[in-house]
Amino acid sequence: MVTAYFTASSLDGFITDEHNELGWLFKQPIDANGPMHYGPFIDGVGALVMGATTYLWIKEHHVDAGDEWGYSQPAWVMTHRDLPVVEGADVRFRRGPVAPVHAEMTAAAGGKALWVVGGGDLAGQFADAGLLDEVWVQYAPVTLRGGAPLLPRALDLELLEIARNEAFLCGRYRVVDQIDR
Amino acid sequence: MVTAYFTASSLDGFITDEHNELGWLFKQPIDANGPMHYGPFIDGVGALVMGATTYLWIKEHHVDAGDEWGYSQPAWVMTHRDLPVVEGADVRFRRGPVAPVHAEMTAAAGGKALWVVGGGDLAGQFADAGLLDEVWVQYAPVTLRGGAPLLPRALDLELLEIARNEAFLCGRYRVVDQIDR
Repeated sequence: MVTAYFTASSLDGFITDEHNELGWLFKQPIDANGPMHYGPFIDGVGALVMGATTYLWIKEHHVDAGDEWGYSQPAWVMTHRDLPVVEGADVRFRRGPVAPVHAEMTAAAGGKALWVVGGGDLAGQFADAGLLDEVWVQYAPVTLRGGAPLLPRALDLELLEIARNEAFLCGRYRVVDQIDR
Repeated sequence: MVTAYFTASSLDGFITDEHNELGWLFKQPIDANGPMHYGPFIDGVGALVMGATTYLWIKEHHVDAGDEWGYSQPAWVMTHRDLPVVEGADVRFRRGPVAPVHAEMTAAAGGKALWVVGGGDLAGQFADAGLLDEVWVQYAPVTLRGGAPLLPRALDLELLEIARNEAFLCGRYRVVDQIDR
């Protein structure tokens, strides 16, 4: 069972801009049925996990704007705060190390993949614990100069697959080793 | 005549690690005759420009180690310091804005491309002046967590071409607009 960090990024390695916004990302053309896009990926996911910032971003930008939560899979949110539950979301809140959460997710995922939604430090925590198998990056054709880092760890990876999807340069990687463990 | 910033990068947008080293890069397999590699690129270059840090890196790691300077094209080095001239190098030192340097390079390049070797801020200065046409990035399969930034500006680009060259995910981009000008 693969645990994967699937994310978009700017060319200079930021997953949000300095204002925690994604306008630079959503304006890019992408083929929803194209290679390495979200659609085929999410179909293989059995459980997902995200940090509090990512959760609140989705709540504020999608749910509070009238959209649905959007995930049918069970979701874990890593947080030290008390967060509001989004209506219709199958979500549970956890704090502390990620290994027990990974075990819970594995038990719930029915043999499908585990998705680390973000942010970058949460993906790094899974890598620290030796529990991150793959990284999928969709590079949008922008540089941002600052923002939330893609994956703030020093890792060796192996390139498994590349694709172009309209504006996006996409790579799928296997995590080989952590250099700064 | 195209002015291009051609560089390798980590997946998280650093062109050197925090110790100004490139061991993480040179250990990666690449096909010297493969797509979007340095060979076909450098054949089309008529003049090149680099910052003082890049110049001194080449001097210390290549020239002082017994290798040749390696560039037959005329080279410009942007520096506020007095720097030693490398034996055999066709190099001139300049300070101040990049626009007059770009004009000098254009006059010398015989219709061929101008290469901004690096670092990232120098490429940014060319972009600031509206003089950067293309960005070529070769992503090595590592994350570094810190180091010298790829291109510390907010730019909109257009993806022109992708390729895989062994371990590297490669993209060629046209600079469309500067968001933070």
